[in-house]
This record gives sequence, structure tokens and C-alpha cells, in this order.
Amino acid sequence: MSSLNTQSLTIEFQEPIILKSGAQIAPYSLEVQTYGVLNIQKSNAVLICHALNASHHVAGHDPDSGKLGWWDNMIGPGKPLDTNHFFVIGVNNLGSCFGSTGPMSINPNTQQPYGSSFPLVTVEDWVNTQARLADHFGIQKFAAVMGGSLGGMQALAWGIQYPDRVDHCIVIASAANLSAQNIAFNEIARNAIMSDPDFHEGNYYAQGVTPRSGLRVARMIGHITYLSNDDMAEKFGRELKRNPDAPKEYNFNFDTEFEVESYLRYQGDKFADYFDANTYLLITRALDYFDPAKNDSGNLSKALAVVKSKFLVISFTTDWRFAPERSREIVKALLDNKSSVTYAEIDAPHGHDAFLLDDERYHSLIRAYFSNMKLDN
Amino acid sequence: MSSLNTQSLTIEFQEPIILKSGAQIAPYSLEVQTYGVLNIQKSNAVLICHALNASHHVAGHDPDSGKLGWWDNMIGPGKPLDTNHFFVIGVNNLGSCFGSTGPMSINPNTQQPYGSSFPLVTVEDWVNTQARLADHFGIQKFAAVMGGSLGGMQALAWGIQYPDRVDHCIVIASAANLSAQNIAFNEIARNAIMSDPDFHEGNYYAQGVTPRSGLRVARMIGHITYLSNDDMAEKFGRELKRNPDAPKEYNFNFDTEFEVESYLRYQGDKFADYFDANTYLLITRALDYFDPAKNDSGNLSKALAVVKSKFLVISFTTDWRFAPERSREIVKALLDNKSSVTYAEIDAPHGHDAFLLDDERYHSLIRAYFSNMKLDN
Repeated sequence: MSSLNTQSLTIEFQEPIILKSGAQIAPYSLEVQTYGVLNIQKSNAVLICHALNASHHVAGHDPDSGKLGWWDNMIGPGKPLDTNHFFVIGVNNLGSCFGSTGPMSINPNTQQPYGSSFPLVTVEDWVNTQARLADHFGIQKFAAVMGGSLGGMQALAWGIQYPDRVDHCIVIASAANLSAQNIAFNEIARNAIMSDPDFHEGNYYAQGVTPRSGLRVARMIGHITYLSNDDMAEKFGRELKRNPDAPKEYNFNFDTEFEVESYLRYQGDKFADYFDANTYLLITRALDYFDPAKNDSGNLSKALAVVKSKFLVISFTTDWRFAPERSREIVKALLDNKSSVTYAEIDAPHGHDAFLLDDERYHSLIRAYFSNMKLDN
Repeated sequence: MSSLNTQSLTIEFQEPIILKSGAQIAPYSLEVQTYGVLNIQKSNAVLICHALNASHHVAGHDPDSGKLGWWDNMIGPGKPLDTNHFFVIGVNNLGSCFGSTGPMSINPNTQQPYGSSFPLVTVEDWVNTQARLADHFGIQKFAAVMGGSLGGMQALAWGIQYPDRVDHCIVIASAANLSAQNIAFNEIARNAIMSDPDFHEGNYYAQGVTPRSGLRVARMIGHITYLSNDDMAEKFGRELKRNPDAPKEYNFNFDTEFEVESYLRYQGDKFADYFDANTYLLITRALDYFDPAKNDSGNLSKALAVVKSKFLVISFTTDWRFAPERSREIVKALLDNKSSVTYAEIDAPHGHDAFLLDDERYHSLIRAYFSNMKLDN
């Protein structure tokens, strides 16, 4: 074990980025955290793409907040993605709320926060900004681009958009597009936010408020979909609130009564404290829109014909948000193109959240995959 | 086929009903609709219990609204539950918002709507009010008590609370209690309603407003859980809004873009037009609280030892709100007590909603069950 060898960087881009919507944005900056050392050949770089509510801070304790990185069990010296061997880049995506340019940032043209005028950003746009980030580091080709959930969509899009610039795409607990049910959950969350009177059409910063109630409901909905039914049954069941003074009988009111209510309210409140509502809207819309097969009439095999990277695809048996069958669609489309693909369906009880958890079989697989990785020299 | 032979009644009860919470309410009235003719022995009565948002109007066109009863495909002359042979009673439950006494009603003590002061009502309380309703009609014993979802819980509770007053309990798409995931969905819906500024702590009637946004979100959440994932995929997939003028490309905004969003918003708006928010809270809490095995440390077999009625239990394969395994728990507990039980798991694609739909196998089964029913004389 050696130190994390980490660096926090704010990288400014002056040249406008043209987004899929046709809108453009400039200047913008990306918040980045790196771990380990980029080798001389610049062949050992791994890009980590985040999901809805995460950031560039993937591992180690943040010196300011003391918070642990969101994938700390995966990334670090001696960890499955070993920063003694790999140079790992965590990036906060454009439009997010952890330091990169987003709806909370000041629009230089108006000297006001962008708010609802911040353009919609897609998965493809993120990948383009990440390619510029690679340029910044002088990295011609990533050893791997890796992510779970929405992060996995970015890893998949890398294989399509930059087939020559990524050797391995690692797509975990993800899908090639959202199902109607997935979109429906996003729509309800957005509806809760947009109908919160503190939303002020997205320009709530000037009012000194945030649409907390809406964010809370959005997060509570999210949480249900991250956990498996069995996991919730095991964690909470019908248990009444875990307060030693709490009565064992019902209260016959609408206060938190069951432990699961108490958990969800707590998670909702915590989320409303730190997450930006406009970012929530924007990122869920990016999820809805991602659909690389859209221009090929839904034919994913056709959309993946350009792929040159090797793929590792992983799913979890109890994930009902992005069920294993959704991963198998990707695997099938890759195999149709005779691409190199390793697929693992991991029997884990924790639903979609499993990709963030410390499951031995899952981590052993990632460890072995990186250990066997031949770096282009 | 003969006419529906239907009657609408408002039945007043002067004697207080003591609720499970210890609260009492008097006077109160129940809105009732009957179909067919009660025979001289009063042995052909079937009570229909409704779920969250339904009413006493189970069949036929309502002369005022023109609306069809919510179980019209099941109940009527020549239908699976044939009103040429059975006397069917539809009742709107206490606390609901379709005419029976509930939060919208005027509290005689204050001359104001009850609002949030309306006491919480449980499944057991409803069954007690329904037993009084049977007394009103002079019915000593129902041929059957039948319901789906929350209505099925009432049918189950009848078997426990009044073992000598119901010959057949017909429990469809139901469960002996809610799972943590079910409670979580209810909690989110309640949260959306209670955090709507138009909720005014439940006393919104005086303000001339209703918490529409909250109700809309609540209904949208409900809808996702009523449909199966496959059903949503088939109905909506990733299809863009079904407006012939709608562009085939994304709009890059937060308006309705996908057909599933448009559907959910429409359902949410429709619901907010007719349903009372306090009733929504109250009925979802009754769902949360129902747990006949609670006082037997979760042992359902023990809780069902008192049952004398014969049971018909039906589940639907794609129902993930009340999955078949939840019905099997009831069947097992009944069998542990050597009760008479018929169980059918119906292969149907429509999720929880299947119990309301016109599935041939399902309807044939109900038809056969009623045809073979021996009426006590």
C-alpha cells in the first residue's frame, strides 16, 4: 500500500462545446480529481464516469468535508482498480453541481446563475467533454473507461464515439437505454421538483430558496428503485421506527411510523441539503435521452458496429432498475459484431446499489480484469 | 340478460362506531349501490369491497356522470358475478370521498369539514361498518365478500372478524400486509401531498384549494406500480409523444417528450380533479397498517385459525405490487388451518391492474366459482 497520490484540479476550457441540442457553452470548467501517476507512455489512464448524484471525488477522504469518495472500496492503492498501477481520473460532469460548470454557475453573459437557461446536456456531450479532458492530459487512449448505471452508459458511449481512444469499456449495472418504467420514475421525480413552488421555473437561486420538498420526493423515489424488494424487506420489513422509546403500537397518524419511512425521509432530507434541483432535472433527462440505437431504428447491433474496444459488462441479479436482461442486450449486440466481451451476472441481494457495494465476487472480477490488462506501449 | 336492477342508497348510522385507534365517529353515513334482488332467505348477498380510489358504484352507467362502474366487466346480469342470481352490494368506505362520511364531510360538532381531524380508519374498522351495513339489510351471512387489492384485504379481514357471517371470501391480487417497498411507495405519495403548500395541514377546503401537485405525483407513482414493466414497455416503450405533429427528434427540454410521460401527466391531472387528498392519506395509511398477524408475532397461520369461510385466492403473474408469493402466504396459512381454499395464479401481462381487466381465464374462474356456490337456505 502506498498513498493515494491524489490531485484536485479545475480545468478551464475556453473553446465552446457544441452540444447535441445545438446549444453551445463557453467557457466552462470541469472539476477533476486524479489518483496515482500517469506513466510515460500515458497508457495507464482510467476514466471513471459518475452516475446521477456522484462526483469527481471517487476515492479517499476529502480534506475539506472528510467525506469518503463514492467508489473508495473499488479505487485506491491495492484496491480492485489499483492506483499503484493505474492513473485514475474522476471527473464531475458538465451540468452537475460539484464544482464543474452547471446551472448553479454564473453565466458570464448575464452575471447571473444559469438556472433554467443552462442547456440540456446528453451522455454523448459528456463523452465529448471527457475526450477534451483526455487531450488536456495528453492521453491519446484510455486503458479503460469505467462506470456504473449512468456511468456505464458513458463507458458504452465512449466505445461508440471514440473507438480508437479507449481500450476497455467497463459497463456496470447499466443499459443501452431507459425502459418506459425508468423514464416514468424520472418523470415523476422531475414533476415533484418542478411543481414545488420554491422551484421558481428553475431560477430559485435569486430567491434564496431551493425546491427542497420536490428534491426530497425525487430522492425517495430514487431510493426505492436502487434497492431490491428483498433487500428492503430484509433491511426494514414492517418494523416500526427504531427509536427505543417508540411505542410498539401504531400511532394512528401520518408521522413516520415504520422504519422504512424514517429511512426514506432521512435520505430525502440529506439529499435536499446538498444536491441542486436543476442538475437533477438535467441529469435525469440525459438518462431518458440516451439511446445509441435511436438512429438505427432501435438496432443496437448496428449502433455498436463501430466498436473496437474490449468490453467488460457486469449486472446484478436483483437489480430491477437496470435488470440483467438489459446488460445482456448490450452483450448480444457486441457479440453480433464479434467484439471482445466478458460478461458477468453477479448474484447479489442489493439491487441496483450493488455496483457501489463491496461484494467479493464482483471486486475479484474487477481486480482480475485490471491485473490482466495489457497496456498499449 | 335482464336489467341491472340497481338502487342507490345513503344509509345513516346514528350509533357511534369505535375505531381501532380508539377514536369514534357519529353520526356517519355510507353510500351504497345495490344490484339484483335479495332473496327471501337473504342468502344471496355479495359484498364488494373497493380499493384505494374506487367506490360503491361497481357496475352500470351512473345516471348523473354517465361513468361506468369500476367492476362493470365482472358484475351485472349474465356477468361472472351474475346479478340475476346474486344481490350485490357496493359500498363506499368510511373516510372515502364518494359520498360516505369522510374528511370532506361537515363535522356536526364544528360545522366545518373534518379535514385533518377525521380519524384514521383501518381495514378492520371498514369491516365493522360493513357488518353494520349487513345488519341494516337484515343479512346474517354474506354468500361472499369479494375484493381486489385493498378490497381483498377487507375480504380477508371478514374471514377473521366475522367467521360466521361470510360463507366465501374472495381475495384477489392482495396480500396479508404491505411489504417495506409497498409502504415506501405510499410514504412518498403522502409526502408529495403533505408537502404541497396547498395542503394547509389537511384543512385546504376552507382555503378553496386542493393540493393538486401532490395528488398528481401520488397518482403517477401509483400508476407505475399498477402496471408491469413489460406492460409499460409494450404500451409505451420509448415512443415519443403520440401527437401526429410531434417531432421525431428530442425537444431538449422538460416538457412531455415520451408517450409514457404524457400518459402519466394525464392520469395525474384526471385524478387530482376528482380525488380528495385527505382520503388518499387515510386510505394509504389503512393499507400500511393492515397486518392481521401483527398480534401473533407475524404468524399468519395463527391469525387465520379462527377462519370458517371458504376462500378463493387469485393472483396475477406480473403483479409486482402484490406478487403471487404474497397470495401464496395467505393460501399456506389457510391450509395450515385445513381451511377450504381454491387458489389460482393467472398468467396475465397487465400487472396489478389485471384484477380490473377482462381476462378470459380470470373471469371464467370467477363465473364457475359463483355458479357452483351453494347458498345457505
